[in-house]
Amino acid sequence: MRIALLGGTGDIGEGLALRWAYDTPHEVLIGSRDPDRARQKAEEYETELDSRGVDVKINGFDNAMAADRADIVVLAVPPYHVADTIDSVASKLDDADVLVSPATGMKRDDDGFHYHPPSAGSVTQLVADSAPDDVPVIGAFHNLAAGRLADLDAELDIDVLLVGDDPDAKETVRMLTEGIEGLRALDAGGIANAAEVESVTPLLVNVAMNNDGLHDLGVRFE
Amino acid sequence: MRIALLGGTGDIGEGLALRWAYDTPHEVLIGSRDPDRARQKAEEYETELDSRGVDVKINGFDNAMAADRADIVVLAVPPYHVADTIDSVASKLDDADVLVSPATGMKRDDDGFHYHPPSAGSVTQLVADSAPDDVPVIGAFHNLAAGRLADLDAELDIDVLLVGDDPDAKETVRMLTEGIEGLRALDAGGIANAAEVESVTPLLVNVAMNNDGLHDLGVRFE
Repeated sequence: MRIALLGGTGDIGEGLALRWAYDTPHEVLIGSRDPDRARQKAEEYETELDSRGVDVKINGFDNAMAADRADIVVLAVPPYHVADTIDSVASKLDDADVLVSPATGMKRDDDGFHYHPPSAGSVTQLVADSAPDDVPVIGAFHNLAAGRLADLDAELDIDVLLVGDDPDAKETVRMLTEGIEGLRALDAGGIANAAEVESVTPLLVNVAMNNDGLHDLGVRFE
Repeated sequence: MRIALLGGTGDIGEGLALRWAYDTPHEVLIGSRDPDRARQKAEEYETELDSRGVDVKINGFDNAMAADRADIVVLAVPPYHVADTIDSVASKLDDADVLVSPATGMKRDDDGFHYHPPSAGSVTQLVADSAPDDVPVIGAFHNLAAGRLADLDAELDIDVLLVGDDPDAKETVRMLTEGIEGLRALDAGGIANAAEVESVTPLLVNVAMNNDGLHDLGVRFE
């Protein structure tokens, strides 16, 4: 499949791009508001993969062109850019695509990080509200530490929680998830259940902040 | 130490009572609004432990008498009984005690379970607001599946997240937690971080509901 990572120049986009390009035969496209930046980062990813003996082509485009060419469109942008990023690519999406939302809303205070969803109730719900009606939306990859994901020497052995209301789209994202070595996909139900999934991200940061020796945490359901 | 499980006749109280009595030298007291019920359940727990070769005395009392005799008071009651249970035992608590809150607020709809905190922001915060000012409060044990905990043949190998603002009290609860075989205590920060911890409980239920073969889940940070 062809996977477009919109905001693929950022840290979570980098991690997903490298892992999919390294572990799977899927074609990875990097999207950015700035196509030069997208091409530059795509080249960096190619160089990193080449240094590990993996010869793949990763192309960079502006977000709309990346979305247009892809089957799977991952919104690897901060939560406050989700709505305008969808607006900029909406005409390129149709019911054969899957829109994937990995973002979560957090605020920080003196105590730590807290879940801070948009008024829609969750970022995934905001994506579903902002996307064209016929485009299926799946929430996934919220709880992955970007640095660990981008370090291809780092073992994962953690779970990815999926939320979504379209079973076929969810199955596609499950397959894409489990294509990455060390990730297990678990179904957390419909998009109405996204807030509890997105809340895990600030919790992971708080636990890492408060326990010596723990960092870049993921979660495993056992 | 002496640990009072208020609401210790319920399922999470039963699990903690059995595990502490089985795995540690701590003395377990069962509290209930109905002291006869507390004594009856305490006898059942003794019988279960005796069948496994562990000869311990577990006493049952009304909640106030259990709290009065204990160093650690666990509010193993539903969230809507937290405030009135604290009221009923407040005069028996002092700054040498530790009040432990394992409850979480959930509501269910067609999609699954959702975190539904009280207006205080979290159940742990409600406990802190309701407790006498000098009594330290620690949130813990929110994310343990009661049935798995009460089954002494079940392996745990999962994490318990602690929140609290009193370091000594948190250290006491950490020690009590890790006295139970297979539980690792992790510090999730202050009580202000409790909502993200309590939110994990409905998530565990949703994941168990949506994935064949998974049930009585716990969480592990890796």
